[in-house]
Amino acid sequence: MTAAQSRKSFGSDNHAGTHPAVLRSIVEANAGDTVAYGADPWTERATSGLKAAFGAEGGVYLVLNGSGANVLGLGLLLGRHEAVICAESAHINTDECGASERILGTKLLTIPTPDGKITPELIASRLVGRGDEHFAQPAVVAITQSTEVGTCYSLAELRKIREFCAANGLRVYMDGARLANAAAYLGCTLAELAEHADVLSFGGTKNGAMGVEAVIVMHPDDTTAAPYLRKQHMQLSSKMRYLAAQFIALLDGDLWLRNATHANAMASRLAAGLAKIPAVEVAYPVESDAVFARLDPRYIAKLRQRWMFHVWDERASIVRWMTAFNTQESDVDSFLADITTVADSPST
Amino acid sequence: MTAAQSRKSFGSDNHAGTHPAVLRSIVEANAGDTVAYGADPWTERATSGLKAAFGAEGGVYLVLNGSGANVLGLGLLLGRHEAVICAESAHINTDECGASERILGTKLLTIPTPDGKITPELIASRLVGRGDEHFAQPAVVAITQSTEVGTCYSLAELRKIREFCAANGLRVYMDGARLANAAAYLGCTLAELAEHADVLSFGGTKNGAMGVEAVIVMHPDDTTAAPYLRKQHMQLSSKMRYLAAQFIALLDGDLWLRNATHANAMASRLAAGLAKIPAVEVAYPVESDAVFARLDPRYIAKLRQRWMFHVWDERASIVRWMTAFNTQESDVDSFLADITTVADSPST
Amino acid sequence: MTAAQSRKSFGSDNHAGTHPAVLRSIVEANAGDTVAYGADPWTERATSGLKAAFGAEGGVYLVLNGSGANVLGLGLLLGRHEAVICAESAHINTDECGASERILGTKLLTIPTPDGKITPELIASRLVGRGDEHFAQPAVVAITQSTEVGTCYSLAELRKIREFCAANGLRVYMDGARLANAAAYLGCTLAELAEHADVLSFGGTKNGAMGVEAVIVMHPDDTTAAPYLRKQHMQLSSKMRYLAAQFIALLDGDLWLRNATHANAMASRLAAGLAKIPAVEVAYPVESDAVFARLDPRYIAKLRQRWMFHVWDERASIVRWMTAFNTQESDVDSFLADITTVADSPST
Amino acid sequence: MTAAQSRKSFGSDNHAGTHPAVLRSIVEANAGDTVAYGADPWTERATSGLKAAFGAEGGVYLVLNGSGANVLGLGLLLGRHEAVICAESAHINTDECGASERILGTKLLTIPTPDGKITPELIASRLVGRGDEHFAQPAVVAITQSTEVGTCYSLAELRKIREFCAANGLRVYMDGARLANAAAYLGCTLAELAEHADVLSFGGTKNGAMGVEAVIVMHPDDTTAAPYLRKQHMQLSSKMRYLAAQFIALLDGDLWLRNATHANAMASRLAAGLAKIPAVEVAYPVESDAVFARLDPRYIAKLRQRWMFHVWDERASIVRWMTAFNTQESDVDSFLADITTVADSPST
Repeated sequence: MTAAQSRKSFGSDNHAGTHPAVLRSIVEANAGDTVAYGADPWTERATSGLKAAFGAEGGVYLVLNGSGANVLGLGLLLGRHEAVICAESAHINTDECGASERILGTKLLTIPTPDGKITPELIASRLVGRGDEHFAQPAVVAITQSTEVGTCYSLAELRKIREFCAANGLRVYMDGARLANAAAYLGCTLAELAEHADVLSFGGTKNGAMGVEAVIVMHPDDTTAAPYLRKQHMQLSSKMRYLAAQFIALLDGDLWLRNATHANAMASRLAAGLAKIPAVEVAYPVESDAVFARLDPRYIAKLRQRWMFHVWDERASIVRWMTAFNTQESDVDSFLADITTVADSPST
Repeated sequence: MTAAQSRKSFGSDNHAGTHPAVLRSIVEANAGDTVAYGADPWTERATSGLKAAFGAEGGVYLVLNGSGANVLGLGLLLGRHEAVICAESAHINTDECGASERILGTKLLTIPTPDGKITPELIASRLVGRGDEHFAQPAVVAITQSTEVGTCYSLAELRKIREFCAANGLRVYMDGARLANAAAYLGCTLAELAEHADVLSFGGTKNGAMGVEAVIVMHPDDTTAAPYLRKQHMQLSSKMRYLAAQFIALLDGDLWLRNATHANAMASRLAAGLAKIPAVEVAYPVESDAVFARLDPRYIAKLRQRWMFHVWDERASIVRWMTAFNTQESDVDSFLADITTVADSPST
Repeated sequence: MTAAQSRKSFGSDNHAGTHPAVLRSIVEANAGDTVAYGADPWTERATSGLKAAFGAEGGVYLVLNGSGANVLGLGLLLGRHEAVICAESAHINTDECGASERILGTKLLTIPTPDGKITPELIASRLVGRGDEHFAQPAVVAITQSTEVGTCYSLAELRKIREFCAANGLRVYMDGARLANAAAYLGCTLAELAEHADVLSFGGTKNGAMGVEAVIVMHPDDTTAAPYLRKQHMQLSSKMRYLAAQFIALLDGDLWLRNATHANAMASRLAAGLAKIPAVEVAYPVESDAVFARLDPRYIAKLRQRWMFHVWDERASIVRWMTAFNTQESDVDSFLADITTVADSPST
Repeated sequence: MTAAQSRKSFGSDNHAGTHPAVLRSIVEANAGDTVAYGADPWTERATSGLKAAFGAEGGVYLVLNGSGANVLGLGLLLGRHEAVICAESAHINTDECGASERILGTKLLTIPTPDGKITPELIASRLVGRGDEHFAQPAVVAITQSTEVGTCYSLAELRKIREFCAANGLRVYMDGARLANAAAYLGCTLAELAEHADVLSFGGTKNGAMGVEAVIVMHPDDTTAAPYLRKQHMQLSSKMRYLAAQFIALLDGDLWLRNATHANAMASRLAAGLAKIPAVEVAYPVESDAVFARLDPRYIAKLRQRWMFHVWDERASIVRWMTAFNTQESDVDSFLADITTVADSPST
């Protein structure tokens, strides 16, 4: 793939461009000189808006990408000898080139899960060796909402995790690269999600931004190191107003929610269409903007000649199809038509 | 300072916004879907353009900010037990919250300099303990071009450093956050600067970009770890096309050079005007877009009521005045007028 | 347990003291002044003896403990972006408080195994994402010989792993904290084991030393950073002669082999006795100085009132019984008698 | 230097062997089995003895060497974004291969000093950028007592530093590799020194031990991470009793003080003799077991043919002569005689 797509990509919500309103906001921020590193009025507006939306009493720190958000967020909660409990499928474990280990020096205590979601029982299975100096000490539980396989924790599930963690001296970090999609799916506010975490990220990039994420710190006590670690982690933008402008646009009239709701609807439309194609089996509940499907490898090969998407699990022959704020119903329908054609063709 | 400036800031080239051509290029890149993480045509165009401009046979890696560029660039040249020789005033030493120490675990062997520039003699003074396991081993010399105090290494000075390093088993990293200004001042090409380094950064942000830097690796052997470390260092942008679009604009018609030439000219105009104000003493040769000046603390306080700029050295009463691509002659002249007024006023 | 044992501990080969010959060697090394940090004649003698025994063309580095050996050994083979493939049960994963992650910043790609041993097939299952910057790149396979559950890789198994690794661009690190026990069990030389590794550790401490391990580097190219990393990792002893003296004693007349052979024999004696106790099931093949046994938790509790040993797996009710160079036949027999008594008693 | 010395070394207090009483204590600890990792009665005795001697309400952690003590001690006091203020000549800066930077990721903010001692004024000069995210935040002041150039802080000087630090939100770490020599020189207790620090090391190795140091944590709050970091830093000894036995011997009848007093006296004797040799100039006040002297490089070369010692500063032609617990008056007198002969010889 060496050129811009002539047709919609189902490869990633990162393949979509920037929402026009976000772009407009960036252009409008290009108004004369302003101070750097976040002491500007755009940053004030974005961060106070985010603080309010999340009910955060700590602080909001804009960063440059999702790995940057995760590593900073975890770093605020972890001592040097402490470890993170997370799903084996967690982005921090599988997709960040070992950044948590390299940058924080932390150990990830991973748990296989059926659906990307961890539970108090699964967490408990990793609570070995507490108080024993030979073991990295579990201190933070990291969950992803929505998960890497497109599922969502319900508010009740989040509450149970939160209570279990509180009772067991564990802090909660929520990777919210697609938190908007979860809020849209659950029909809840960002604050209702955030109350179950100590620190969380809020992803702009997969939601129509050009490139920005926020680290939301719920409690003031956890903010002490935040500005310094953001800088040390090379996540401090000098012309911060352009990061802030993106969140200003996403917060304006709840664009973040409209984008997520739309992307989710397109994934549901895709899943509904797939239900009529026997050769394709949806692998996980469709609860955000992703559809994971199992189909014959030969079908996959044929489809990839015309559409951009990733094979998620080569061995299990599972693909990942993602929608975005800019996916059209007609894109989904064309894609479904092609899948039907491929699946009906005589296999050789 | 909580609002956008009503008047020109002399605080930093980071206070300037984005050059209109850069912004246009970003807007134009917002054209449909494209693959993420740099496998898009914009990134191909930007990186091949930069490779050509620098004569780099290794690779070009776009990153998110200047600290990100420096830490990645140094990381490509350093073993875990190796140290960096740099000027005490180097940005990596004074302005990055210890990122090199934290992220690379490296030791900075700093050297006081009269003008921000290190020399073979100064480097030699730091070459103690080589081969002795008790000493972190100097392996890289990091220079900044133009320097943090606005001076430039001449090509002859760079060549001498390079030859000394080659003869002493040292690699050269060049922090080029303001490399454009140096090229403009010296009247040389980027390749003529680059041939004296192994790895260098090329700053877009201070040159009119919205936020992008490039790490230029001159030799293919030094690229092996580059993509992975960029990701681990949280410097890999998913919607990379928007970083690339900025460099496409800066390279187009050598906008980078015009921007730098203009900023330098504005700094020279400022310095020329200051020469007529006895109460102000220019502290370093003005060879880029910065003017450092020594003046009475009371004058500083008065000026800062009307103009934005930083005090560089509180004790020595030295301020830093920076120009940018968007500084107008009239801005400089107004500023000079105010300085004159302040310096003429009876001191209380 | 707050006092020295009045009876033999089956808790660990670390519970045994120092072999008398090792102690004598230490006392003899206390002869006047000598230079520090390893430039002394004792160190020369120990390291040249170890180099010869292992057929190492690189170097030998004495260090202070097993974690120190593992982290140094791995560090010599790993770039900053690279990961280690190892068994889930590996000491580096379970027993070193995350030192590899903290000190090297590396990711451990762990594999569940039935018997502590990994195979080419298991390694292959972890070779995903090679060449993809989102994945920490597997570069080293770490095996433990003998393993943490007392099993040994055969020479044929080692050869297969080595060949697979060579064919797949992977280096081999061998954690040899109990390498002596493996050599004794397999009836092979240390060199025959070492030829299947790039770097390995050779444990003295569990073999009758007071506290010393050696890092053996097979190839000269891998030694460049070794002295510096040993120092940085705080593993360089100033009065090195006392570390060296321990290995001098262990090498003298192959004391290391006699100690290991004896400890292995005691474990076999224990296993043979257990075969006659139906209530106790040996969990893994007994191939070194460890016996893992599954028995009723109530029996465990009763036995621990009289004997020192660890519960290995609380849930599976598996204990670990270890012998050492100083375990006597009568110790084993007394222990067996008590196990029999406990297992015959009516359970309440 | 490839053989044990036939004559006394003045090279380092590390060149001396182990004091006979320490060796006896080690041999006596070799009594049957005991639990590992410090839960043994020897460790209990040594650590409770040290706690009492220092008046420490936190904990005592035995470690394997001086770098291990320093890095652990600093690590207990430092957040990830925090920096250490220390003398340029500090061992942590010059002699540990960058371990603090590599293992802790911390920045050392170094200060040139005339005599190895820092003062509140010197510390104040490094307190720039506090609260500014671009600067690594000074959090710990590290002092060495006695210093690397053999001088001692008086109790009054320590108190001033302590008060300054308390008033400025700084913690105090004291590198006590030669704390015994300082106590001997000042005629004070260890507790009188310790009350001016938060965490300190107490060196055994240079005081006649075989190889052991203690990290003394004064306040309970600072101990939380200590056992884990000791393990992660690879400083946890399995057969801990042999470390403990060394401190038991040193504490017994204040052997540590007798050793230090003797070594100091030998240094004073040497200095007194040097006062009569005009060609030799003592460079620093002789306040512990070290004499630094400036003399003609040709004299140095001649003396080094017969005596082992280090050149401290090649350019300034300063050598370091160290005494130890085992230096005899006759050693000093022979050495002085040779220096006199050399200094009287006609220079060529």
